[in-house]
Amino acid sequence: MSEAKQARVERVRQRMSDLGVDALLLSLGADLPWLTGYEAMPLERLTMLVVPVDAPAVLVVPRLEAPRVEEQPDVFAIRPWSERENPVSIVAGLVGNRSHMAVSDRTWATFVLALQRTLPGASWRPSSEVTGPLRAVKDAEEVAALAAASAAADRVAGQLLGGDIPLLGRTERQVSQDIGRRLLDEGHQKVNFAIVGSGPNSASPHHEPASRVIGGCEAVVCDFGGTMDGYCSDITRTVWTGPPSSEQREMYLVLQQAQAEGVAAAKVGVTCEGVDEAARSVIQSAGYGEAFIHRTGHGIGLEEHEDPYIVEGNKVSLVPGHAFSVEPGIYLSGRFGARIEDIVVASPAGPVALNLVSHDLTVVEA
Amino acid sequence: MSEAKQARVERVRQRMSDLGVDALLLSLGADLPWLTGYEAMPLERLTMLVVPVDAPAVLVVPRLEAPRVEEQPDVFAIRPWSERENPVSIVAGLVGNRSHMAVSDRTWATFVLALQRTLPGASWRPSSEVTGPLRAVKDAEEVAALAAASAAADRVAGQLLGGDIPLLGRTERQVSQDIGRRLLDEGHQKVNFAIVGSGPNSASPHHEPASRVIGGCEAVVCDFGGTMDGYCSDITRTVWTGPPSSEQREMYLVLQQAQAEGVAAAKVGVTCEGVDEAARSVIQSAGYGEAFIHRTGHGIGLEEHEDPYIVEGNKVSLVPGHAFSVEPGIYLSGRFGARIEDIVVASPAGPVALNLVSHDLTVVEA
Repeated sequence: MSEAKQARVERVRQRMSDLGVDALLLSLGADLPWLTGYEAMPLERLTMLVVPVDAPAVLVVPRLEAPRVEEQPDVFAIRPWSERENPVSIVAGLVGNRSHMAVSDRTWATFVLALQRTLPGASWRPSSEVTGPLRAVKDAEEVAALAAASAAADRVAGQLLGGDIPLLGRTERQVSQDIGRRLLDEGHQKVNFAIVGSGPNSASPHHEPASRVIGGCEAVVCDFGGTMDGYCSDITRTVWTGPPSSEQREMYLVLQQAQAEGVAAAKVGVTCEGVDEAARSVIQSAGYGEAFIHRTGHGIGLEEHEDPYIVEGNKVSLVPGHAFSVEPGIYLSGRFGARIEDIVVASPAGPVALNLVSHDLTVVEA
Repeated sequence: MSEAKQARVERVRQRMSDLGVDALLLSLGADLPWLTGYEAMPLERLTMLVVPVDAPAVLVVPRLEAPRVEEQPDVFAIRPWSERENPVSIVAGLVGNRSHMAVSDRTWATFVLALQRTLPGASWRPSSEVTGPLRAVKDAEEVAALAAASAAADRVAGQLLGGDIPLLGRTERQVSQDIGRRLLDEGHQKVNFAIVGSGPNSASPHHEPASRVIGGCEAVVCDFGGTMDGYCSDITRTVWTGPPSSEQREMYLVLQQAQAEGVAAAKVGVTCEGVDEAARSVIQSAGYGEAFIHRTGHGIGLEEHEDPYIVEGNKVSLVPGHAFSVEPGIYLSGRFGARIEDIVVASPAGPVALNLVSHDLTVVEA
């Protein structure tokens, strides 16, 4: 594992050099665990890996967290800081007189601002400009981890479609918590989200499950995912709690076709916006264009959302190992909506869907 | 509720004016829900409330999340943005030619850097300079919410001390997941962390529970908390899986006394560093000073860690409504450690501990 990490560090340094980045500063987010195996805690105590382009990397870490860190002398050294020290000054000292910085995308504003005050001459850019294209291409082990997480999410989706997760008469929040527990039971270490939108709430793509009680003959959008052995799952299925209306049925068939076209388009060499267009054009042709209010998908890996984004304007061409969601949706505000989502990996043999649970219109009378 | 929010907005504007802040920009973190009831999703799509000191507030929100937002015309308007728009430009447009910005502490670096590029003449500081002292003082409803979350965590801690959560022969991770499920069963909506450190790992304050199997006669530090109806819980108890050694017993008695002295010191008018000193001096006098490697506590509310921090150098005096942890620990590296933590609220009648589960040395032979 340490060898894989070392190889990643080499590729990162090469790209830093190509882009003219003198020092990479990694705090929150997945760049740090991707490079080191260690994940910063999201706390007011700064953890930051300093990777100068021309000197060994050093992990600045709160002293009380230092015992959690496994030293990897080939990858990085450790500099624990005590409660009386200023970690920003320690980072600045390690940066020295280097001036072109890249800082991890999710680093808290407090730390960015403090670093800028301490290194007033430096220029700043987000680390994803360095790491994004590297992290977006998954190796075989990473694809296997994504497949395992997707399979676990599939088992929960299968329970949903099979009626094992009662819907009728329960609140959205109860169903959301039920789904979350099942994700853990199926092997996830962490639930990242479990959206349950019923009836009119099914038309709100990122609906927050709350006290609404699920009734009969309603669309219920369930979009859930978690983290398993470091890698994320993300799946959406829409079910009905009784026979859908003919309008709903027609809309769902359009969505099914759009999702299938999106997946089919995801071949090596096709651009990300090409995949978006493949799904979107089906929905537009059917007259629902205005009701598909988001991009078709996002990359997935150590993070739920990462490069490559499947969105208009993204001209990156797919290469083997790109992993992303294909998740068109149709939302008729205040009435109903639906979404179907699978994780897909681009491969030389064509798109490989990691989620295998049926897309058929399913009525769950439980 | 909207009235309470309006009053908070008034106090925030007053403080902005006092500090010379022209516009407050709130994205991730608790400032936004504290002011509006709405919490930004931690995603690459920007959500940001723009609060000019002299104009109405506007919430810039991804269009697909707009249906989740409850409009509050007295508090803020909504400006949804579609996938083809640039939210940073929209924020910059709302800022106009104002130049002194405060941005929420946890805003992602990507957005801070993009805003700085778009508003090159502006000065920047973290929003906690505006909101921290206001949010640190809880009103009666907030104290009630903290007390309810603490009571739920207490029930889980009671199960731990009562032997209902098996330890012997299970991995730390299994126990951590068990504790997490119980937090949900007791009413939390979210598990924020569940540290389980056994044997030598008990000496690592922020230990990541993993595959170590818990054996007999070991110290097991369990530190866990979650979010219930918006407010956080946080409790630590240390138990033994068999009779502790006389050294461990002696160390634990020192810790008990230190924690009690810390709580007793937390009176209105005492400084935060005074509370730290009260707990620390007991541990120092007993010769364990070097083994207490962290501050005594942190504020708690909508966030697990917020103002006021109970740490050397913090000269803020406690006022009624300050809520914080008192959690001294003693860690003998590679051997064993212990920590006791309760949430405490400062009140005119003296310190009120919200956690009521016993601190007695407890042996759990299960």
